[in-house]
Amino acid sequence: MRKLAAIVSVGMSKIGRRPELNGRELVVEAFMEAWEGCRNLERKDIGAVYVGNQSETYEHQIMYGSLVADWLGLLPAGSMRVEGCAAAGALASQTGIMSILSGIYDIVLVCGIEKMSLRTTNQIIDALMAASDLALEQYNGMTFPSIYAMMASSHMARYASTEDDLAAVAVKNHKNALDNPKAHIQKRITKEDVLKSKVVASPLKLYDCSAISDGAAIAILCKPDIASRYSDSPTYITGIGRKSDTIGLYEREDVCWPSAVAESCNEAYRMAGVEPKNISLAEVHDAFTINEILAYEAAGFSTRGKGHEFIRNGESEIGGKVAVNPSGGLKARGHPVGATGIWQLYEIHNQLLGKCGNRQVPGANLGLAINEGGSNAVAATHIIST
Amino acid sequence: MRKLAAIVSVGMSKIGRRPELNGRELVVEAFMEAWEGCRNLERKDIGAVYVGNQSETYEHQIMYGSLVADWLGLLPAGSMRVEGCAAAGALASQTGIMSILSGIYDIVLVCGIEKMSLRTTNQIIDALMAASDLALEQYNGMTFPSIYAMMASSHMARYASTEDDLAAVAVKNHKNALDNPKAHIQKRITKEDVLKSKVVASPLKLYDCSAISDGAAIAILCKPDIASRYSDSPTYITGIGRKSDTIGLYEREDVCWPSAVAESCNEAYRMAGVEPKNISLAEVHDAFTINEILAYEAAGFSTRGKGHEFIRNGESEIGGKVAVNPSGGLKARGHPVGATGIWQLYEIHNQLLGKCGNRQVPGANLGLAINEGGSNAVAATHIIST
Repeated sequence: MRKLAAIVSVGMSKIGRRPELNGRELVVEAFMEAWEGCRNLERKDIGAVYVGNQSETYEHQIMYGSLVADWLGLLPAGSMRVEGCAAAGALASQTGIMSILSGIYDIVLVCGIEKMSLRTTNQIIDALMAASDLALEQYNGMTFPSIYAMMASSHMARYASTEDDLAAVAVKNHKNALDNPKAHIQKRITKEDVLKSKVVASPLKLYDCSAISDGAAIAILCKPDIASRYSDSPTYITGIGRKSDTIGLYEREDVCWPSAVAESCNEAYRMAGVEPKNISLAEVHDAFTINEILAYEAAGFSTRGKGHEFIRNGESEIGGKVAVNPSGGLKARGHPVGATGIWQLYEIHNQLLGKCGNRQVPGANLGLAINEGGSNAVAATHIIST
Repeated sequence: MRKLAAIVSVGMSKIGRRPELNGRELVVEAFMEAWEGCRNLERKDIGAVYVGNQSETYEHQIMYGSLVADWLGLLPAGSMRVEGCAAAGALASQTGIMSILSGIYDIVLVCGIEKMSLRTTNQIIDALMAASDLALEQYNGMTFPSIYAMMASSHMARYASTEDDLAAVAVKNHKNALDNPKAHIQKRITKEDVLKSKVVASPLKLYDCSAISDGAAIAILCKPDIASRYSDSPTYITGIGRKSDTIGLYEREDVCWPSAVAESCNEAYRMAGVEPKNISLAEVHDAFTINEILAYEAAGFSTRGKGHEFIRNGESEIGGKVAVNPSGGLKARGHPVGATGIWQLYEIHNQLLGKCGNRQVPGANLGLAINEGGSNAVAATHIIST
């Protein structure tokens, strides 16, 4: 198994509505944890900064690359922002990994940030919708809940999955988040709570949808052979994959098969030389509950069309076959859009090091992170090992 | 001189106000030229797509990575958007170069696109201003012309440069664009026209400012050792550099010294093993005329504080010491923000191949492209050789 890059430290802000801090300050909060988590590192050693950020609408701020380099005292490091809607974080990380593999940089900082709560819910829905197809989705008044509702309806009609199965994903992820002090939503819910919650886009209800959150996350990556200088307990990225699908859902052969996700996982598995059965935990993109079920199938944890049986049988619980979203996922940990892909790395890094307290996955030694953007139109997958 | 990557083909749309085409269609126009300019290439050979794009405001469209991969028939290639305001194009290209150097991809497509003219001038000024500092520049009502006007005032006060020197840059670049059929503005102007044009932010007048344009540009990059499969006349990227500066102008020690530009040039020169005196042509970031003068200094074509003498003495004319902006530059060729960094590569590639007709730089054999974002808060430099 080839080590592509080492994660020597991670940091994350508390996720939630954070009216007291603006975006750059959330980044500083995440950085302080990451900085304290490593040793011997000097700011001048960090050669490049890659920042995942979804939308300029929330803060009226672009150029997040140089903004972060500036505020963290990392000038004159090269910097840029990376965007693929909600996949921005993982794409920033993979850009960092490739820039290390290129031989240009030894150490890079990758960051995800989104400060959403300055805007109204309608403004946020509109800003997110910019990730769908302008010509045939936006102009026809679609929203992301309605796009994912079509995937859910299709899956239910074809494979006999149920609203109960969707609800079970929400119940599990809310339960996991209770033990995550950085989670946005720490509230135990029952299947009945989900089923009785307000319909957003049938069959998706309020508790089937992730929250609107502020937050930032950071990982410091380096060449594997120098990792021991900076940490006694690095983890290693051993496989990456990123693939694209049509921008519009209407162009797909099968609306409930996320092919970019499946192909990005396959690319990462091949690179790491592992199989789905080797994975002990996964952080996947449950922006809507149906999408966690689709991720089980795309990641090969279950066969196609059988994802709902995986949750029904408790296989994705902590202690099950593969612990999925032990952090609470986008659903309960929160979904500050550009940060999500980096906090997935944060969770897996800490799980592999056994640092996760009551939500610790027993025997965690190989983690999978799937980050997706738009209607699964882009997917970026990481495999991380001790 | 190490070859980092080969440019095997380039394409570019006509730049200008293009009401008949939306952004993705401008990309197709650029792609058709690039596709016809190479051979033996199949779509499935292109492993990744990197798209420079500045603002979601213009088209209400993000996810430009998968949108371009989709519309060009390149699915399921990995894709993402890159943003560093006006440096987005060069940052996308350098991401592509590093991903080739990483060994992950053999061939990538890099693209820049901006479709600006759907919005009013005030909306565009506002969308561009998102690249400045939210807290202390945007909130105080600054605009980019006013930021660059401060640089110009400072340079004039300290070094005795004049409004005539600024005007000379505009006159040269308008003259060069007359021979560029893809240029936005093909209009000969005199120094008097510039000096008499409406003041935008003193000392900058209308003709000191680049235009608002629609346009797209594409380059197809590959590993140097396979370039001959796809083209008889590839060019080679031999040096790259990218550096950052403070997001706000108010944080700088010297407002008229673009340190990120200078350091990115030095990094690229070192990597390529060349010096400023070896450069035969340069495309630089003349979003405002003062910035071309600052670029002469930062690139080492003139000493610090003497940039205005370089234009005064005709050294940057075609036929001078270094032909600067033979394409017409941002000033007259046009400035579709995210596309600019890629069309700089387009121009240099074609100049090195002797394909530029009446604007051909005699003996062109080594080109420099400087792409900048914000108030020079990020800079990305390429050196390209035959």
